[in-house]
Amino acid sequence: MFIKNCWYVAAFSKEIVNLNLFSRTICGMPMVFYREEDTGSPVALFDACPHRFFPLSKGTLTSSGIQCGYHGMQFDANGKCIKIPGQDSIPESACVQRFPLLEKNNLVWIWPGDPALADKDKIPTFETKDRASSGMDFSCFDVHSPDWLHSGGEHIRVESNYRLVIDNLLDLSHADFVHRNTIGSSHTDNEIQIDTHFDELTLHHLWSMLDTKPPHVYTLANDIEPESVDFWLDTHLFLPSTFILEHGVTATGEPREKGVCLNNINALTPETETTTHYFWVQSLLKTEGKEAKDKQIVDLWRKLTKNVFAEDEWALAEQQRNLSLLGIEELASQQRVTLETDRPSVLANKIIAKMEKKENEIQA
Amino acid sequence: MFIKNCWYVAAFSKEIVNLNLFSRTICGMPMVFYREEDTGSPVALFDACPHRFFPLSKGTLTSSGIQCGYHGMQFDANGKCIKIPGQDSIPESACVQRFPLLEKNNLVWIWPGDPALADKDKIPTFETKDRASSGMDFSCFDVHSPDWLHSGGEHIRVESNYRLVIDNLLDLSHADFVHRNTIGSSHTDNEIQIDTHFDELTLHHLWSMLDTKPPHVYTLANDIEPESVDFWLDTHLFLPSTFILEHGVTATGEPREKGVCLNNINALTPETETTTHYFWVQSLLKTEGKEAKDKQIVDLWRKLTKNVFAEDEWALAEQQRNLSLLGIEELASQQRVTLETDRPSVLANKIIAKMEKKENEIQA
Amino acid sequence: MFIKNCWYVAAFSKEIVNLNLFSRTICGMPMVFYREEDTGSPVALFDACPHRFFPLSKGTLTSSGIQCGYHGMQFDANGKCIKIPGQDSIPESACVQRFPLLEKNNLVWIWPGDPALADKDKIPTFETKDRASSGMDFSCFDVHSPDWLHSGGEHIRVESNYRLVIDNLLDLSHADFVHRNTIGSSHTDNEIQIDTHFDELTLHHLWSMLDTKPPHVYTLANDIEPESVDFWLDTHLFLPSTFILEHGVTATGEPREKGVCLNNINALTPETETTTHYFWVQSLLKTEGKEAKDKQIVDLWRKLTKNVFAEDEWALAEQQRNLSLLGIEELASQQRVTLETDRPSVLANKIIAKMEKKENEIQA
Repeated sequence: MFIKNCWYVAAFSKEIVNLNLFSRTICGMPMVFYREEDTGSPVALFDACPHRFFPLSKGTLTSSGIQCGYHGMQFDANGKCIKIPGQDSIPESACVQRFPLLEKNNLVWIWPGDPALADKDKIPTFETKDRASSGMDFSCFDVHSPDWLHSGGEHIRVESNYRLVIDNLLDLSHADFVHRNTIGSSHTDNEIQIDTHFDELTLHHLWSMLDTKPPHVYTLANDIEPESVDFWLDTHLFLPSTFILEHGVTATGEPREKGVCLNNINALTPETETTTHYFWVQSLLKTEGKEAKDKQIVDLWRKLTKNVFAEDEWALAEQQRNLSLLGIEELASQQRVTLETDRPSVLANKIIAKMEKKENEIQA
Repeated sequence: MFIKNCWYVAAFSKEIVNLNLFSRTICGMPMVFYREEDTGSPVALFDACPHRFFPLSKGTLTSSGIQCGYHGMQFDANGKCIKIPGQDSIPESACVQRFPLLEKNNLVWIWPGDPALADKDKIPTFETKDRASSGMDFSCFDVHSPDWLHSGGEHIRVESNYRLVIDNLLDLSHADFVHRNTIGSSHTDNEIQIDTHFDELTLHHLWSMLDTKPPHVYTLANDIEPESVDFWLDTHLFLPSTFILEHGVTATGEPREKGVCLNNINALTPETETTTHYFWVQSLLKTEGKEAKDKQIVDLWRKLTKNVFAEDEWALAEQQRNLSLLGIEELASQQRVTLETDRPSVLANKIIAKMEKKENEIQA
Repeated sequence: MFIKNCWYVAAFSKEIVNLNLFSRTICGMPMVFYREEDTGSPVALFDACPHRFFPLSKGTLTSSGIQCGYHGMQFDANGKCIKIPGQDSIPESACVQRFPLLEKNNLVWIWPGDPALADKDKIPTFETKDRASSGMDFSCFDVHSPDWLHSGGEHIRVESNYRLVIDNLLDLSHADFVHRNTIGSSHTDNEIQIDTHFDELTLHHLWSMLDTKPPHVYTLANDIEPESVDFWLDTHLFLPSTFILEHGVTATGEPREKGVCLNNINALTPETETTTHYFWVQSLLKTEGKEAKDKQIVDLWRKLTKNVFAEDEWALAEQQRNLSLLGIEELASQQRVTLETDRPSVLANKIIAKMEKKENEIQA
């Protein structure tokens, strides 16, 4: 099932371009996106004309909205029909659902559920305490941010249910196996300090290794390499499926912002029951006077992440293929072995189960 | 569901060639066609051997009928088994269903339902009143017709339910949108005269525009171009799904036969629930002493129609894809917006609903 | 349905290679195969990690067993988890099913059902009475056999339910039609002697033609050609689906071993409801001092059988496609015409029906 009454990333701002219709299926619903000519505001409508369910995205965009490509009915940005060729009266029912959108920090968020319940304050965000965490309100993806330099956004279409991707991100112990050839490395010699806490909306699973040899990937673009670093991988999940992964290294004992601080946005949006839109960004906390170096680090992480997430994409598709072969629709409810590293995933699944229950009540 | 107790076009005569087995699925049933060696009469049998359901169309044609390609059972034109290799007695039950066929005017019509109910008089035809309508009994597709010159028949396999194609043909207002780049043109300045009438078997939806500028497509092959014409587009539907579209122009006030008169046969035959056989022909009323010119006009309309119907094919597949995504099996029963131009389609759907009810009674 | 509590060929020995994971679906279950490093014994495990159902075959093989490619859990050859990265305790439930295997004569047999019921003595075999039948315990596929020279094993994936393949092999009258262009030939002038006998486990359908012209295919590699031969085609089925087809010719009145004696192993293993693994071998009884000639005959039969079985593969896929179109899941239960040549197939289907009943009782 889909939890529809919440905010998901629908698209990167750059994907919705003036004078162009853009279609994407979200939570099983076909949607068409465009920008209003005058305001530039993004619009999302149900992608089926109420007349004969022809996809509106196959029509044309006019200055006043979409013209259906089959019989020419025109719809404004509210989904209201404003013209029917060959007839004067327009029936009340001639309209398509408009989905609430919010555009912020280069992300276009959508509320695929009941528009009356759409609440701007429920948009995913995390607490911003100091400079190192200042991008956690997703401003790390703002191109004009004074503090953050991002990699550009990437969209992957993963061939698995979105909950398999959640489990993947909540158990980074898979890195040594799925990512053996890219970022995998064995840290079993050092003690990982783990802190997991959560509330109704967010789940935080924090990993740190103090006084350790710097992982290879953080040293690639660095001129000077500290002998020993503190290393963190802090996974923050805004339920159901929007992540920021804070990661980086700093010289042992030093504050984070003195080191290399990265925010990895991972926003998952269900497409169908077995496919997921995966939007990701890597963003770096800038170091004053080191523009060229920062650019180099971000470029490196963009390339690296592309390779790494291609490995996840493969693994998730293999997992989904096996589940489909075995006739398993939903993993969380299965009799299966649960490991200690599954704790965050089990917690998340409990909260999601609650959200699904609430969703069923809304839809009933 | 399929209405099986009526006549559909199964094939053009030219598709069923001597000494050749030809397979086509109609109303969800696999069928094999061939011509009897002695009489040349077309035969249609259920395309599954009663022994092991091997497709008979993958066997071989002998002078006495089909020999199954698996174990060599032979069936005559009545579907009766006449030989079983290795045994002398032939069980009564060793037979396949033969479907009634009628061949006339280069069309092979089939009755996919109960053979006992097949009635020759129920074959689609329309009234023939004067020379301009003389081909409406489908004789406009007779190669020896003294009056009509046809384009040759074309077969399209449309990726949609046949009822979506009916709706498409009953609402030609789509021309300005789907066919924007081919035959679309805006006639909104002239008043269209519309007459819709129907009975239990036929529905007629007649469009005419008097005293209008001749539409571009009718002037392409003409040497002299009248300043003002009367223009008609008369859609005749023999329920459930056989159309003739009369169209043409004549100098304002003149009788039709003095102008350019075309008959466009459009015969729809359900293949599966989401695919349709679409047989079409364009045919021109001949002008005495203008053979070369007539040939030129027909050629032009064949090429043009090919392009135009490729646009319909695309639009219908997009519509069906969206309906399938939305889980909508049957459009007519949906809560949806109905336009004034839908009147013929709504009427047709009411008659089809009655036919389906009757069909259910036959099958029960 | 699948009969799981019996032995099927899972693979040729050569397919399971040291240091390599090999996956194959059997009776609808994904399985992973490998050889134990120390003993070389083949192992078959359920191909889904009990943690998140990731296919184990996509992991890596270590000296102690399989390491899952997702989170690194390790399983020994018994399917027992022996290591979980990052935790010390291993839950009892952390295991995957191990399937009993038996390797003999280059064949790896599997018991896909309840391991407790797996009985070595139930492995398919046929009685060995004299030298001509000495390979009927499948030793004709032993590369070190003093008596038999085999063609190498071939694996086909047939696009049909395994029972359609059984019917195919039990009614060789299809040869004159499906194999018209390869081995088909009309023997209707000679009387075929037929003996069909069976018990709970095996069915034997024996064809012989005495004092007949030698069939073309047996004379191809022979220098001297007897004018008249005795010809046999003895189909032996070990239920549900393991065949040896004895075939050959000898000069009329002479014992078989004086002529050309071939054993054709045909082992069918259900993959899914509509696909089948088909393992085949041709093996020749050696003639003393004629190594080169024997080699030549076996090579000829390998090439010939490859072509012949490609014809069966085509016919079976066509049959299955038609059955699927008609919504027929199981042929044996259909109202259909049964021929005299179907007797072995009807008998086999009765025994299989009993086996399925028993299987349902085991699974209940």
